[in-house]
Amino acid sequence: MASAGLENGPGPSHSRRGNATGMKCTRCRLPAEVQLRQHNAAFCRECFILHFRRQVERAIRKQRMFAADEEVLVAVSGGKDSLGLWDVLHELGYRTTGLHLSLGIGEYSEHSARKTAEFAEKQGLPLITLDLSRQETDVSVPRVVAFTRRPPCSACGILKRHYFDQVAVERGFSVLATGHNLDDEAARLLGNVLHWRADYLARQRPVLESTHEKFVRKVKPLFRCSEYESAVYAFFRGFDYVVEECPNSTGATQLLYKDLLNRLEVVSPGSKLAFVREFLHHGHAGFITAPVPPPTACESCGMPAYGELCSFCRLIREVETRRKRRNQAGS
Amino acid sequence: MASAGLENGPGPSHSRRGNATGMKCTRCRLPAEVQLRQHNAAFCRECFILHFRRQVERAIRKQRMFAADEEVLVAVSGGKDSLGLWDVLHELGYRTTGLHLSLGIGEYSEHSARKTAEFAEKQGLPLITLDLSRQETDVSVPRVVAFTRRPPCSACGILKRHYFDQVAVERGFSVLATGHNLDDEAARLLGNVLHWRADYLARQRPVLESTHEKFVRKVKPLFRCSEYESAVYAFFRGFDYVVEECPNSTGATQLLYKDLLNRLEVVSPGSKLAFVREFLHHGHAGFITAPVPPPTACESCGMPAYGELCSFCRLIREVETRRKRRNQAGS
Repeated sequence: MASAGLENGPGPSHSRRGNATGMKCTRCRLPAEVQLRQHNAAFCRECFILHFRRQVERAIRKQRMFAADEEVLVAVSGGKDSLGLWDVLHELGYRTTGLHLSLGIGEYSEHSARKTAEFAEKQGLPLITLDLSRQETDVSVPRVVAFTRRPPCSACGILKRHYFDQVAVERGFSVLATGHNLDDEAARLLGNVLHWRADYLARQRPVLESTHEKFVRKVKPLFRCSEYESAVYAFFRGFDYVVEECPNSTGATQLLYKDLLNRLEVVSPGSKLAFVREFLHHGHAGFITAPVPPPTACESCGMPAYGELCSFCRLIREVETRRKRRNQAGS
Repeated sequence: MASAGLENGPGPSHSRRGNATGMKCTRCRLPAEVQLRQHNAAFCRECFILHFRRQVERAIRKQRMFAADEEVLVAVSGGKDSLGLWDVLHELGYRTTGLHLSLGIGEYSEHSARKTAEFAEKQGLPLITLDLSRQETDVSVPRVVAFTRRPPCSACGILKRHYFDQVAVERGFSVLATGHNLDDEAARLLGNVLHWRADYLARQRPVLESTHEKFVRKVKPLFRCSEYESAVYAFFRGFDYVVEECPNSTGATQLLYKDLLNRLEVVSPGSKLAFVREFLHHGHAGFITAPVPPPTACESCGMPAYGELCSFCRLIREVETRRKRRNQAGS
């Protein structure tokens, strides 16, 4: 059910829905349905939708994410953020195609693929689906994890990056949009800052320009929208999205960072947005060092690589080597 | 009572005292009395004292805070950190003199002055005491606050900086040491990072070199020692220190930052130290911009200033102007 996400409390307690306090919409003065303390505003349903889309539009324009006539490949998992992003881009008049990777994580992946396909059909939007278990090598996440003993999120990240770029390049897209929201970006920023990972901080931008003809430009148009706003948008729009988290996402540290930032947000609304925004304005410049040399072509697959093989092909080799070894041991 | 600080729980729950678990001292294998997860160590009383002093010694040496023969002026409030710092410096063989500012904050200040004086006498250490209410203008904190409506911590900071420098210069000290501990530094760093205050980050070092003949070098030898370690040191050494916080230190934000960092420390021991240490190694360099022009002399008092008047004299003028205005209104 679409409402489950909201009832489960997707955001910090400082943002409220309902109109118990008789608040009025900041924009049209009709009764407000949602209060956004970080924006010092309250909105009725219609004006909230407008506000949300404007936030996205402003991010695209200010960060020069893509041009009005550029066709955008949207990475869609079936969750509220990616479906919301796809919807907003479509409603703003951009030409979009969805890309869904079926990761092979049991029921969770089946459920995600179904919700994504239903959404695309209902909205009449083109969708590309890629099943990782049906590639030349079966690279579904559980299989890769079983053969390599890598943490699932690490393997999944490598696979996603590879296929996002591969599909974009093959189909002629110049830009890929992902549904990372403000909470994701703030938590990742906090993690990078707590360890002062200068190289990661240098690359933490809502736009990652292409540095190779087979690296597509990556953009995060929701980086100014909190997880709560994203959930409210999905609810108001009546999306039927995947509510449950990926069963692999233990991600205790990331959740802790989100929790810390939510506590801060309660005391000081707007902290998260200021943290990310001021980083882009004032913090980021200090981490730009000598430009990283552009990648070369992977000797195996021709995709960009920072050594002989790209990280995807290294992963595949690991899977193949261990599989053969196990087969030999078993025979 | 000296033990009150420990029983009140000065540190996060991840550090434990007592020997219920039968831990042994990492150094001498006798039963341990304190566990320090951030150092992956446990210590008996004697070895903890050694560990604490070594941490301070290493900070002084690595950061080149002062030379072995340099006489150090130690700012002493009467709390565990500053008394501990004074004691360690003395025990390490440095020549030290204490400087206590009596801020005029009612019973709290009287209590602090008494504890400081008792400590100095017991240890046979020279102490300079300055009563802010007995200066040319009465600049006790409550009076300054009453006349200027500044936040007390802001006024207090200006007063402290002024008199620390003035006393150091008049008495011929080249270095002033303060008792800021790791938790203070980590919380301040987090606050500066969350707002990306580049100019503050540029100056956040355990050593602030003198940029003017009347600005004395400021050092923080306890910056590697957690608040918990500092409290344990005070307890093991049997100090009779001021346990209560300054009544003005509402400092909700600073306390929140400390709380957030303590939560992180529970999950990932050593986070605080890594945050501060990696900032010094990797983060700080990015915030150094064009060198700030050196200060000129204040037209009123001759102390360093970044305008016609130093911030202390601006504060005094504010007090005087408002006092006269009130007297006129009253007459």
